Amino acid sequence: MSGLLSPVSAGTPVEELVSDRAWLQAMLDAEAALARAQARLGTVPPQAAAVITRTAQAALFDVRALALAARRTANPVVGLVQALAARVAELDPPAAEYVHCGSTSQDILDTGAMLVASRVLELIRADLARTAAALAGLALAHRDTPIAGRTLALQAVPTTFGLKAAGWRGLVLDADARLARLLDGGLPVSLGGAAGTLAGYLTDREASFADALVTAFADETGLARQRLPWHALRTPVADLGATLAFTTGALGKFAVDVLTLARTEIGEVSEPPGGVSSAMPHKQNPVLATLVRSAALQVPALATGLTQALLAEDERSAGGWHAEWLLLREALRLAGGAAHTAALLAEGLRPDPARMRENLSRTGGHIASERLSAALTPRLGRSAARRLVAEATASDEPLTGHPLLLEHLTAAELETLCDPAGCLGAAAHLADTALE
Amino acid sequence: MSGLLSPVSAGTPVEELVSDRAWLQAMLDAEAALARAQARLGTVPPQAAAVITRTAQAALFDVRALALAARRTANPVVGLVQALAARVAELDPPAAEYVHCGSTSQDILDTGAMLVASRVLELIRADLARTAAALAGLALAHRDTPIAGRTLALQAVPTTFGLKAAGWRGLVLDADARLARLLDGGLPVSLGGAAGTLAGYLTDREASFADALVTAFADETGLARQRLPWHALRTPVADLGATLAFTTGALGKFAVDVLTLARTEIGEVSEPPGGVSSAMPHKQNPVLATLVRSAALQVPALATGLTQALLAEDERSAGGWHAEWLLLREALRLAGGAAHTAALLAEGLRPDPARMRENLSRTGGHIASERLSAALTPRLGRSAARRLVAEATASDEPLTGHPLLLEHLTAAELETLCDPAGCLGAAAHLADTALE
Amino acid sequence: MSGLLSPVSAGTPVEELVSDRAWLQAMLDAEAALARAQARLGTVPPQAAAVITRTAQAALFDVRALALAARRTANPVVGLVQALAARVAELDPPAAEYVHCGSTSQDILDTGAMLVASRVLELIRADLARTAAALAGLALAHRDTPIAGRTLALQAVPTTFGLKAAGWRGLVLDADARLARLLDGGLPVSLGGAAGTLAGYLTDREASFADALVTAFADETGLARQRLPWHALRTPVADLGATLAFTTGALGKFAVDVLTLARTEIGEVSEPPGGVSSAMPHKQNPVLATLVRSAALQVPALATGLTQALLAEDERSAGGWHAEWLLLREALRLAGGAAHTAALLAEGLRPDPARMRENLSRTGGHIASERLSAALTPRLGRSAARRLVAEATASDEPLTGHPLLLEHLTAAELETLCDPAGCLGAAAHLADTALE
Amino acid sequence: MSGLLSPVSAGTPVEELVSDRAWLQAMLDAEAALARAQARLGTVPPQAAAVITRTAQAALFDVRALALAARRTANPVVGLVQALAARVAELDPPAAEYVHCGSTSQDILDTGAMLVASRVLELIRADLARTAAALAGLALAHRDTPIAGRTLALQAVPTTFGLKAAGWRGLVLDADARLARLLDGGLPVSLGGAAGTLAGYLTDREASFADALVTAFADETGLARQRLPWHALRTPVADLGATLAFTTGALGKFAVDVLTLARTEIGEVSEPPGGVSSAMPHKQNPVLATLVRSAALQVPALATGLTQALLAEDERSAGGWHAEWLLLREALRLAGGAAHTAALLAEGLRPDPARMRENLSRTGGHIASERLSAALTPRLGRSAARRLVAEATASDEPLTGHPLLLEHLTAAELETLCDPAGCLGAAAHLADTALE
Repeated sequence: MSGLLSPVSAGTPVEELVSDRAWLQAMLDAEAALARAQARLGTVPPQAAAVITRTAQAALFDVRALALAARRTANPVVGLVQALAARVAELDPPAAEYVHCGSTSQDILDTGAMLVASRVLELIRADLARTAAALAGLALAHRDTPIAGRTLALQAVPTTFGLKAAGWRGLVLDADARLARLLDGGLPVSLGGAAGTLAGYLTDREASFADALVTAFADETGLARQRLPWHALRTPVADLGATLAFTTGALGKFAVDVLTLARTEIGEVSEPPGGVSSAMPHKQNPVLATLVRSAALQVPALATGLTQALLAEDERSAGGWHAEWLLLREALRLAGGAAHTAALLAEGLRPDPARMRENLSRTGGHIASERLSAALTPRLGRSAARRLVAEATASDEPLTGHPLLLEHLTAAELETLCDPAGCLGAAAHLADTALE
Repeated sequence: MSGLLSPVSAGTPVEELVSDRAWLQAMLDAEAALARAQARLGTVPPQAAAVITRTAQAALFDVRALALAARRTANPVVGLVQALAARVAELDPPAAEYVHCGSTSQDILDTGAMLVASRVLELIRADLARTAAALAGLALAHRDTPIAGRTLALQAVPTTFGLKAAGWRGLVLDADARLARLLDGGLPVSLGGAAGTLAGYLTDREASFADALVTAFADETGLARQRLPWHALRTPVADLGATLAFTTGALGKFAVDVLTLARTEIGEVSEPPGGVSSAMPHKQNPVLATLVRSAALQVPALATGLTQALLAEDERSAGGWHAEWLLLREALRLAGGAAHTAALLAEGLRPDPARMRENLSRTGGHIASERLSAALTPRLGRSAARRLVAEATASDEPLTGHPLLLEHLTAAELETLCDPAGCLGAAAHLADTALE
Repeated sequence: MSGLLSPVSAGTPVEELVSDRAWLQAMLDAEAALARAQARLGTVPPQAAAVITRTAQAALFDVRALALAARRTANPVVGLVQALAARVAELDPPAAEYVHCGSTSQDILDTGAMLVASRVLELIRADLARTAAALAGLALAHRDTPIAGRTLALQAVPTTFGLKAAGWRGLVLDADARLARLLDGGLPVSLGGAAGTLAGYLTDREASFADALVTAFADETGLARQRLPWHALRTPVADLGATLAFTTGALGKFAVDVLTLARTEIGEVSEPPGGVSSAMPHKQNPVLATLVRSAALQVPALATGLTQALLAEDERSAGGWHAEWLLLREALRLAGGAAHTAALLAEGLRPDPARMRENLSRTGGHIASERLSAALTPRLGRSAARRLVAEATASDEPLTGHPLLLEHLTAAELETLCDPAGCLGAAAHLADTALE
Repeated sequence: MSGLLSPVSAGTPVEELVSDRAWLQAMLDAEAALARAQARLGTVPPQAAAVITRTAQAALFDVRALALAARRTANPVVGLVQALAARVAELDPPAAEYVHCGSTSQDILDTGAMLVASRVLELIRADLARTAAALAGLALAHRDTPIAGRTLALQAVPTTFGLKAAGWRGLVLDADARLARLLDGGLPVSLGGAAGTLAGYLTDREASFADALVTAFADETGLARQRLPWHALRTPVADLGATLAFTTGALGKFAVDVLTLARTEIGEVSEPPGGVSSAMPHKQNPVLATLVRSAALQVPALATGLTQALLAEDERSAGGWHAEWLLLREALRLAGGAAHTAALLAEGLRPDPARMRENLSRTGGHIASERLSAALTPRLGRSAARRLVAEATASDEPLTGHPLLLEHLTAAELETLCDPAGCLGAAAHLADTALE
């Protein structure tokens, strides 16, 4: 796939990690790790495991042929095992008997999927760290920069750009915490054999051999031990779906805010130069935010399908399992692309404090109406104060100098009260705390 | 993309139609058709249009380079236009000035998407026709074959396999009718220029020139006229999403029923030979139904994203539009693969009437309890009849020969009433009517 | 339910139509219609049908008791039938034997659901008609009112407010066409008996009796004939889901545009007075657009569940069917509320042409850059023209009077070219055509 | 709402906790807690806080009137504040000035929502504990009970019913761990004031007052402190959506397995008596599993909408916030109902070991083919062993006594190898470990 229809990820590092070739390699890694784990426990000759490991290289296989063969069995592992065994047999015929020994397709595909996902999650975390650092920089630099707080599309009361940036960063950290949780526990290996009893791996051995095998397999893959075979207990898949949707959603909030603030009439931030319209030379489109938002609109839909993977019937679902692969891959790809793109956006974002100020002044002090009410309350009582301010704002004249208000306040008091910089509440303090 | 993770479509005809190369070709087709349309109306020299048409071949372009370039503008058309103009300039420098003349990226990408979708929809319709024909054959052949009707997982009353097949076919025809409706009205060209006013195409011409251009563009592409420029009015995309989700859902119903009937303990249908388990030589897995169901579990999730495309802000959404492409492509691919696979399944499905009979007999006539109630009602009143049958069935003994019932019926009457073939209601008639 | 958490529909006409009481009445209507249909065909005494009809009034039943009883059978019909029969028996004991005669829960619940849906769809269509009429009025009144066309959040080239309104109306008409299609074909009755063979209704009659019964039932309910019993062929439910999601999506586009145009810094439209913030007396929140958008964000999610209803196993799904009811009801309620609210919004919307002009002037003519390129192309060639305009716009100075441009154009020519009113393309013509 | 269309929750304890009245009470609890928190910090007179607390009782307010009033402001809090202030004023006019002091609608609604959610999550956890305990009992009791392991709808190799039950329990524990995580960290209060700066609460106080207020508010509500005001940072809502979808998905796996095992032809489990069909006295429908599955099919769709809440623009979304309420309430209700119903199902489930054995014997030993291959491998090599077993199974004769196999094995060896109880792998050990 060239990435032609996925500019959010095309050419970004995640692309390589989720390619069909990478997926194939991960499945081969699982086969090789299984053989080595069995060798450690004495059920496969070390020499066979070594040959299998040496042969388990994606470059030696025809991924297209494997894809086509997958239609016969509904999964690509059966064909892969045949191809791998054939390759191994060329080097060491007896070793071929030990390929995929006691195993089942789902053990290999699921373990491969967890390897792919682990690598992508690490990558995403690195990009989230970049994003969070850049946003922390913006929060610090604009700790006291007033900007209109907007609710239901309208200017409400002032806030600071620093607090906005701190909020974006907070969501990024929330996403990172959820990814870290998945990785800290560790995505698990999948080892169950034909129907989740590990019978094929045991042959005549004690059941406790199963524990040793799971441990060795986890060691060899770098993944975590599973608690139970999970062919039909799809917690890891549902968790990945939810976490990737959260991640793109968190980045999407940043993107939608940038898109709003970048509007021609608002103009409070701009993207790093680069995006140009095909037809309109004057347009510096907010391309990065557009790309991030595009991912944030797709991944929750994909994740719904992954959540529904929990409804897997029997010991292996006929169709439920198979519905996971594409959705998971695209969710990983989009999240990885979004994380990379968001880092560029955060690092290149250019706020315009002058425009923020100018926009704040547009309402002629109306944005300070909440504060005016509060200031007049001790003198008039809350209801009367609110009524007075409502009357003054209804007239559409600037509040600074408004005759109704000058009946109760001096001109200087009124000007001060209408200055957005004076009614920022705890914005700077909140941003400070968030950055600690 | 090799299709490694999408066995439902890998190697099926749809794959080629939705590849990045096909998408590229469709966009080039749109550029060429635009030039020819403009040539017909005299705003582009015919010679230039001819050169542009000749150059508009995907094989001449580096799809990967275009994908990478797409990140700069959030869409692949800007780079494509540059590459196309450069190629044209090699052959005919003045002609290069007429590439993408007055146009905008979205006109080309949307029109290309409609071309791709049209081709896929035709393909799907052909496969649905095969499926419907095969199911009609099954319905006819098994017009009178009794099978357990099952509700809430349990045998309820008998029905016929013919009526089941007729029902599956009914859904397939429903899907086909929805696809036909989209194609009959015709998927539309997209022509709006920079912000939907067609200004770039008009330069100094009368507004009615816009009509002529849309007509000529529709002619040249084979698509329908649009009613309005639809850059931000995403009816065609939402309709495609809903229709593809319906199509895979309709096929999915067929698949889930096959999966149930193929269960080891039920065994009333089997798939054509072919699917073999990697670990268990005895298993002839219902691979085709598994693949179809896998698509049916994915496409509704993708379609949700396409429905939400309607919430496109402004004259072109920043991210909403971009979120459509991948979802649409995968929905087309999965639906195309599912339709192809369902045709194979319908054509190869092997019902086992003997097992159907055998399963019906398992309840010892309990499945005829509704009919027994009805038969006893004239003698005992409805409530008493139901009570009696409930008492008889509660005992878990076969109803044929049940002492409680023999108080009111002769043994022969009872046997007749318990014969599933005698309580098929209008099943055969309904199937006949449906096949008319 | 008080509607406390659903302000988009609270107190609007749809609320009553989808209440539990309305649903109960619709199921009673189905029972009564069935009895009358059977009376027309001679299988139920006319007197019994009359008593059943007279008794089939929601006010006579305890909806809460029925809801609680529904847990025992997973649906509310079993309890309803008992309660109805008991009531009928009070008036006419023999008639009670003819309640729900030969029927099954799903026939009653599905038919009731179609009755509810039909009534809601009619209501929605009436509100869409109001909305479309109001938008047509806006389109006509603002046929030539220039407004910035915006793409990817930025001003692109000018368009007209009339064309925007015509576009919103176009989507509303698209939604209406989809609703009309559902209603014209007619939502169908559901009649299948225990497992879709109609056996319970036939007893010893010819299968063709089934046709007569379906026809009579359709007549008595006012719904359409079904083509096949559809207990597990969920086309009507999937269609309703898709159509309601389309409808709210279409209205949602209108809402998101209003929310953008109402932004403090844009201010090109405002809502009818009414919405007031709790804390900020100056804020006239765009409440109606907010409510419409809230529905548009919910219904596609609900509709996903309804699409998946197609995957109904067997002759009646265990859980799939039961998952439809709440989703369908809430989708109907939200769509009905959104349609009502959108009508108020369209009828009360107040455009501000002066602000539209003022915003257009902000870019100092940059918004006319496409037109400038086009005008310079004959003199300089397209590439050179685009380069020149790009250079001029890069300087951030107004284009009117820009020295680079004055090398090629007179001051008057330049001013004319930079006037947004002069580069509206076919906007007015397109709106005219759309309104025809 | 009577619950007529939601039998999964009607009459279960969650219903009361998510009713409109409960939601109203939770918002009143938030108002009262705010007043008390402010009283602790000296910005509200203690007497006023006491009166407000005393008045904050849902029974004193007309929930329907508040619902209708909510349309004017798009949320129910504005009307609630007016009504509360009026009530307070009746008792203590000056105290009315301190109602909702410095606050904003979203602080109250969000805090109320977290109170509702906390209560529901605790309830769900209690039901999950019951379910897990019952499943542990089943796992223990059936530690060694053989049952067919089924993959892709077919019998694969044997497993134990104990391991199946342990797997269901594992998912329930996974769900509980996710709920516990949300509750342990604690769902947060929401306190931001008009645009998230807490300005309204501060008036002239130091910013650090904000910290004290958040702490006091958290104390008074029993919720956790927030890290930042989260009006537009919707982590708690997205987390709730994902967790509720996970919970119903986990329970849904249990339900779909029960539905399969309860099939007439399988009959390996049955539900506690209770469910009866309206038309068929013999049917004991698996009602509880049906209800649980119905919830599992709905909640993921609702949760998609909640995940998308992350894309909240500005300091408060116009429509995004409003789209959360209904979806969250229904997700809580359905999850609560599903948890309660699943507990009943787990506690009442009746496995039938004899039917499990009988079903295992149906394949005439074919289910042991994996084990036969393994046993023959040392003698014949893997490939030859697999070929031989494939040939034997292809003949459709029982494997016990199959001539091809008797060439390599004694009759006694063959019989032993074909006994399912001998090829259970590590099933019992895995269940033991899982229960530790």
